[in-house]
Amino acid sequence: MALKSVNVCLSPALLPLYDADNTTAVVIDIFRASSSMCYGLANGARAIIPVAEIDECLAYKEKGYLLAAERDGAVVDGFDFGNSPFSYTPEKVAGKTVVLTTTNGTRAINLCKNAKTVVMGSFLNISSLTHWLRKQDGHVLLVCAGWKNHMSLEDTVFAGAVVDRLEASGVELDDAANAARSLYLNARDNLGAFLAKASHSKRMKHLRIEEDIAFCLQEDLVTAIPVMKKGKLVCLPEYMPAAQ
Amino acid sequence: MALKSVNVCLSPALLPLYDADNTTAVVIDIFRASSSMCYGLANGARAIIPVAEIDECLAYKEKGYLLAAERDGAVVDGFDFGNSPFSYTPEKVAGKTVVLTTTNGTRAINLCKNAKTVVMGSFLNISSLTHWLRKQDGHVLLVCAGWKNHMSLEDTVFAGAVVDRLEASGVELDDAANAARSLYLNARDNLGAFLAKASHSKRMKHLRIEEDIAFCLQEDLVTAIPVMKKGKLVCLPEYMPAAQ
Repeated sequence: MALKSVNVCLSPALLPLYDADNTTAVVIDIFRASSSMCYGLANGARAIIPVAEIDECLAYKEKGYLLAAERDGAVVDGFDFGNSPFSYTPEKVAGKTVVLTTTNGTRAINLCKNAKTVVMGSFLNISSLTHWLRKQDGHVLLVCAGWKNHMSLEDTVFAGAVVDRLEASGVELDDAANAARSLYLNARDNLGAFLAKASHSKRMKHLRIEEDIAFCLQEDLVTAIPVMKKGKLVCLPEYMPAAQ
Repeated sequence: MALKSVNVCLSPALLPLYDADNTTAVVIDIFRASSSMCYGLANGARAIIPVAEIDECLAYKEKGYLLAAERDGAVVDGFDFGNSPFSYTPEKVAGKTVVLTTTNGTRAINLCKNAKTVVMGSFLNISSLTHWLRKQDGHVLLVCAGWKNHMSLEDTVFAGAVVDRLEASGVELDDAANAARSLYLNARDNLGAFLAKASHSKRMKHLRIEEDIAFCLQEDLVTAIPVMKKGKLVCLPEYMPAAQ
């Protein structure tokens, strides 16, 4: 039992190129969905239900769930909140189930549904994530959510950080994994400045989410690893905050 | 009149994301189609006709053209040659029209048909290519042919080299252009060693094309810039070898 390959899918549009058999998919949407999911579950959210469409999200209203919807970086009118990590604090989410739809991240999760396991990755949980990934067998596919099917710098840099930690003799890397790793090695000494070039940072400037961006670049704030179980993201049991 | 943006399309599968309006597309297939096309036209080939399918290529047999076909790195049985640059020497191609089909490069060319202008780029013509691109207005899209819709390290590194030479104040770069440039800056001091990691290099090992690979990494061996005119690649007049 061992890791065989680590590949990087740079855009959800390229997912059909990859085999889902015996594959652990890690969905990455650094600014901000996957970061907020890790943070929310670490802060005691019971579950996060990722849905693709705003209407689907609204359909959960009757159940007393927290409804979160983001489009083009902003909270959708009429929703409790969007995907800012500051909306996923213990005071707001402990004991609650959150239903979330975002521009890119929740769509990427749904596209991975044939994988053996689907987990969420972010800088916030990178050490526990890579600790767990090293114990998996078969293939790891790092799925960058990107922006409307374009590759995004921040998701690719994070994928490269994971590749860098998982690389070992005998583990095959595809060209995208090698490229992502090289990008990370260039960026790591000053992630913030490197990612200031990212189109997402520019796109978000008018939304004043600089604090969100700085927050999402912190390493190892939490140990929680969100995993998809029957349509809901819950904590992988052995990495639950309470288990520490 | 000025360059507005330089974007990088990392895979032909992502081409639908880009607007072709007022766009100069540069098709890149370093190992080896775009390199051989630059070399062949510099060596006096009258034209190179890129076709997508082997059958299309065969249909030109009656006209006395040279027929070239490559699939999965090897010359297709029954053809004069494939896409090795050593098949595009003056002795072989001067005064001739070549009809060529390759696994990735010719397909990428056909997908760019809505662009304002389509040219071919390679390390062999990088200085004349960037000299000419700087004089264009509108958008430059660097289209990496990749490998069966996967991104490829060598095409992306070359795209990054072009981005690095075109970057100037006021020229917008997308995230893929920034990533490609960073990759190139990491690779440029030892391109050969960096690209030894590329899946294409590994894939081609049994075909003994190490000499082709080393050949295709030489900068500025030629000035010719292949441009699509009525379905044929010919030299841009102002960069024709005879005009030097």
